[in-house]
Amino acid sequence: MSKYSFKNDYSEGAHPQILEAFTTTNFDQQNGYCDDDYSLEAIEFIRSKIQNPNAGVFFLSGGTQANLIVIAAMLRPFESVIAANTGHINIHETGAIEAVGHKINQIFTTDGKLKPSDIQNVVDEHENDPPHMVKPKLVYISNSTEIGTIYLKNEIAAISNVCKANNLYLFMDGARLASALTSEKNDITLIELSKYLDALYIGGTKNGGLIGEAIVINNPDFIADFPYHLKQRGALLGKGRVFGIQFREFFRENLYFELAAHANKMAQKLTKGITDAGYSFLSDSPTNQIFPIFPNKIIEELSLKYEFYVWAKVDDENSVIRLVTSWATKEEAVNQFVEDL
Amino acid sequence: MSKYSFKNDYSEGAHPQILEAFTTTNFDQQNGYCDDDYSLEAIEFIRSKIQNPNAGVFFLSGGTQANLIVIAAMLRPFESVIAANTGHINIHETGAIEAVGHKINQIFTTDGKLKPSDIQNVVDEHENDPPHMVKPKLVYISNSTEIGTIYLKNEIAAISNVCKANNLYLFMDGARLASALTSEKNDITLIELSKYLDALYIGGTKNGGLIGEAIVINNPDFIADFPYHLKQRGALLGKGRVFGIQFREFFRENLYFELAAHANKMAQKLTKGITDAGYSFLSDSPTNQIFPIFPNKIIEELSLKYEFYVWAKVDDENSVIRLVTSWATKEEAVNQFVEDL
Amino acid sequence: MSKYSFKNDYSEGAHPQILEAFTTTNFDQQNGYCDDDYSLEAIEFIRSKIQNPNAGVFFLSGGTQANLIVIAAMLRPFESVIAANTGHINIHETGAIEAVGHKINQIFTTDGKLKPSDIQNVVDEHENDPPHMVKPKLVYISNSTEIGTIYLKNEIAAISNVCKANNLYLFMDGARLASALTSEKNDITLIELSKYLDALYIGGTKNGGLIGEAIVINNPDFIADFPYHLKQRGALLGKGRVFGIQFREFFRENLYFELAAHANKMAQKLTKGITDAGYSFLSDSPTNQIFPIFPNKIIEELSLKYEFYVWAKVDDENSVIRLVTSWATKEEAVNQFVEDL
Amino acid sequence: MSKYSFKNDYSEGAHPQILEAFTTTNFDQQNGYCDDDYSLEAIEFIRSKIQNPNAGVFFLSGGTQANLIVIAAMLRPFESVIAANTGHINIHETGAIEAVGHKINQIFTTDGKLKPSDIQNVVDEHENDPPHMVKPKLVYISNSTEIGTIYLKNEIAAISNVCKANNLYLFMDGARLASALTSEKNDITLIELSKYLDALYIGGTKNGGLIGEAIVINNPDFIADFPYHLKQRGALLGKGRVFGIQFREFFRENLYFELAAHANKMAQKLTKGITDAGYSFLSDSPTNQIFPIFPNKIIEELSLKYEFYVWAKVDDENSVIRLVTSWATKEEAVNQFVEDL
Repeated sequence: MSKYSFKNDYSEGAHPQILEAFTTTNFDQQNGYCDDDYSLEAIEFIRSKIQNPNAGVFFLSGGTQANLIVIAAMLRPFESVIAANTGHINIHETGAIEAVGHKINQIFTTDGKLKPSDIQNVVDEHENDPPHMVKPKLVYISNSTEIGTIYLKNEIAAISNVCKANNLYLFMDGARLASALTSEKNDITLIELSKYLDALYIGGTKNGGLIGEAIVINNPDFIADFPYHLKQRGALLGKGRVFGIQFREFFRENLYFELAAHANKMAQKLTKGITDAGYSFLSDSPTNQIFPIFPNKIIEELSLKYEFYVWAKVDDENSVIRLVTSWATKEEAVNQFVEDL
Repeated sequence: MSKYSFKNDYSEGAHPQILEAFTTTNFDQQNGYCDDDYSLEAIEFIRSKIQNPNAGVFFLSGGTQANLIVIAAMLRPFESVIAANTGHINIHETGAIEAVGHKINQIFTTDGKLKPSDIQNVVDEHENDPPHMVKPKLVYISNSTEIGTIYLKNEIAAISNVCKANNLYLFMDGARLASALTSEKNDITLIELSKYLDALYIGGTKNGGLIGEAIVINNPDFIADFPYHLKQRGALLGKGRVFGIQFREFFRENLYFELAAHANKMAQKLTKGITDAGYSFLSDSPTNQIFPIFPNKIIEELSLKYEFYVWAKVDDENSVIRLVTSWATKEEAVNQFVEDL
Repeated sequence: MSKYSFKNDYSEGAHPQILEAFTTTNFDQQNGYCDDDYSLEAIEFIRSKIQNPNAGVFFLSGGTQANLIVIAAMLRPFESVIAANTGHINIHETGAIEAVGHKINQIFTTDGKLKPSDIQNVVDEHENDPPHMVKPKLVYISNSTEIGTIYLKNEIAAISNVCKANNLYLFMDGARLASALTSEKNDITLIELSKYLDALYIGGTKNGGLIGEAIVINNPDFIADFPYHLKQRGALLGKGRVFGIQFREFFRENLYFELAAHANKMAQKLTKGITDAGYSFLSDSPTNQIFPIFPNKIIEELSLKYEFYVWAKVDDENSVIRLVTSWATKEEAVNQFVEDL
Repeated sequence: MSKYSFKNDYSEGAHPQILEAFTTTNFDQQNGYCDDDYSLEAIEFIRSKIQNPNAGVFFLSGGTQANLIVIAAMLRPFESVIAANTGHINIHETGAIEAVGHKINQIFTTDGKLKPSDIQNVVDEHENDPPHMVKPKLVYISNSTEIGTIYLKNEIAAISNVCKANNLYLFMDGARLASALTSEKNDITLIELSKYLDALYIGGTKNGGLIGEAIVINNPDFIADFPYHLKQRGALLGKGRVFGIQFREFFRENLYFELAAHANKMAQKLTKGITDAGYSFLSDSPTNQIFPIFPNKIIEELSLKYEFYVWAKVDDENSVIRLVTSWATKEEAVNQFVEDL
């Protein structure tokens, strides 16, 4: 491909440190199913980073799988999930949550973020007519969201409060958690954040891993049996070492956040360049996905040199595109894009 | 770990040629979801190896997932799967098939292999009382089986005949297909085998891959929509290139079969040594899993130096153990084991 | 209960002609599972009333079950249902459709009715990003709707057109079909209506039956295997005669429509009285469910003498209530209500 | 039909006392969803008959539905059901249990009854390899069984013990419970029996009801939310009064057991006549289903005058047939059958 791609954050392989770790460990014989030395060490690193020594930490290959397994494990058949209409589980997972039996109660948002009052409304409406309606029981949020926005500390705290008041679990899709936590606007630490969550998953694939995600279960009710759920859905893999090796590198020191910081820096450079050129954005994103609005003519010309998604039509003349940066994005490409613009 | 492990064929990482391929391709930007150059090339290699240019070829991370997705895609809700009682889907996948809604009609076997007459019996019994009984619609076989045995050409042909006569789909779990096809007793080629099958999966993880399996769909009715099923179950991964790179190496030339041939050779050496020492086996396995029967005292001593599974109790004095060799098994370890015995 | 109930149309038992039919047939020995003489005769009556001699007709005990079984039978796992946000399956069936694995794509409506352009929009949106989104495949409409409105002939024809153009099945929830078809505004016959539908269910419970509904499948692809689906979901009942007897009485002559005509007449009387008293309605309902808007004070007083649901809050002073009439509603009660108002 | 039918116990309508109760209550307005006066009274009668004032009692239309809902409500996704190979859920419900996601661990029996040691074995086998195997969590037994046998008091006690020791729930399918409890060999009361059970269902349809079954939940963990499960699976019916009326008649005094006693008496008469004529039986049934073994020639001749199922082939010359008596079976028909034999 001769065009430079801002299409997504999984266009390249893995950070070289991770590939190297595969090589150096390659001939060590290890147990299967994440009972290998690397996974066990990675689990301890993660527990330490969130300051929860009792957390259940489980590795698997993908985010849709992480979402469907956590939700299937936590809910009983008649319980439902509250999510934003833009939530990944609601529109981009081919009905994976419904396929394990659960309804998603959608909340309409313009910024991809749930508000406590909306959550309370959904709960209230569903208390009108039991047992003829599903019972909302889990709140799904993503951070950063599908349109690049992030939750601030007070927003998370408020959502947590409404969850606790209504006996709802709080689950965070962290496919792009690293980008959220290292973004300029972020004001919450991973430790603080994790304390508000019953469960989250920490994305690896989109942040320089070869392949893999880490589910973290803080709620003690769902830890012991979680491996059964993983196995039943096809997520407990014999060569679990593959995940352990990656997350050990991520969290041994600070690689996980360094990679995201680079992606964010590249996105901000693009944002500044685009803003300076006089264009506006769909959302106020401090993370590695940005959504500029361009005239269709300009989009056409940019698409001769760059790959990206056309996200939505604005009007007959203008559209939103999505530009995604990553750990591997080259600064020259960013500069060139701004210049071309 | 200081003991040498014969516990499974996924104790090590990946064949070095595969790791190298990750490195050399690492910074090429590629499309996601197996629409990358490597996956596309690997798909063509596989189509060529089975001589079916129209086959659907799909990569994913694990075998349980492959089994549950193929079965969920092919069956309607009231249809069931015929499998051996020893079949992986029946006992070692935590109800994954039932979790997608389908009953497994078990056939009792001693050698892990289905016989055409048993399949016909199951079909006949279920025609007694429609619609009060499930309707068997798919036959699941594994090759090599869970106890190391393989299907010969005439056996596969006979199963295929009974399937066609009863409108049953035939699906092969090929987690250890390479070992079956390169074993001394094998008399069928991959091309011939594939022609008998509506679907199969070609195992990568247990044959020197880092992680990944390839589903092959020959039945044209199930190809076009298969990606929806993959996505819904969490198996369509953004960084599909990871699988494409591996299977491109496997099938670019002959690596896939060379690795299995080594594993088989090591297993045969063990078999010969054990036989010479006067012990017998649970099954007649020409593949990389062998099941010798030893006195418990000897098992105890062997376990001081080697890792393996104790498979089953034979009587108060003797037990079956499972020894598994792989692409990475060292000949010295095999020699040492026989000597120690 | 001393209050008169306008709470629903299943407050009483069954029309006496039906009870009598139970008595006269009681000691005839019959086959189970709707293979009895009464069911077979009822099936022929229904086929004749819709002029489709090849229709599959199946009896079962309830509407939620009818909805979930038709949808489970018609869709493959990744396919979804398009429905109004007010649709019974979407809000009042405790996630029954999701529990059999399917997502509902909601369309926001104010009158409970789907418009062809909305259906087309949902289809278009989901074609943007296959296979990452569900594939809409079935349109669910109810007639009369959950808020009493009905579909006119040209509206049904237009929906049918958009369904055919997009390969969507069209399914009608006819829990209150009798009321729709006998309402003053109706301009379509059952025969015409049925020709537009792949499937529908004809409600018995809410129109003077003791208990039971009739599913009609016009699409030949889904008839032969339908009994398996019924059985698997617990809907194929040994004493199927109970349903056959009822529907034989309904459709032997014209009882089914006579009962609904009475209900409608009573509702219209209420509507006229309420309108004359100066109140307005949530929806323009010509059927047996009407939704007047009253000051809360009046609602409070009415509730001393009558039972009904408070449907929704309008503002701090006013609310919508739901009044339902039935085959058994007494004209004096209606007159009294209007007078009391 | 001119032949007399011994095909099943649901060939006729309902006991006249029940039909009469429908008539006398017909125009009373009542709440829906089993919140009517009759259902509430019937619930109290049942609680009193089992001496558990806190039991959850829920009415629904059929047995397969009862089985699938109880099991879906009690189990988490990875948990399985232990049942006899002859169990109704295992062979005659079209995979209803698997369709709600759960594996059935079959135990081979010749008399339709589970033995404690078999249950223990299944549990032990599944503890070998967690989380790769399902976790057995509920034991399903039927009383009387599908081949007419019953559980004695000490047998139930022993099963209960093994369940408690292994944290398994015990659930009884009581489709023909009345026949079991009124059979000559029975030595346990309904009160004693119920105390051993986490849940059971009390069959109405096969014992003179028009249609309907009563689920009883003794385990307090599963009572409060049970209505959600009923609704989601389509079992919570608007006209719940239909069930309440029947069970109120059944348990107001002793009708439920009187009807079964008649059925048993008729079956015993058949058994005696057949035994006296020199024939033997498949099982030792003291209940209303008996399974004589006849030469095929005799079966052929009997089938000219009587309806019954041919249950199984014994050898080339002989087969088992099933004869079922009911509350409505006429003594003359029984006498005639014996004479004809």
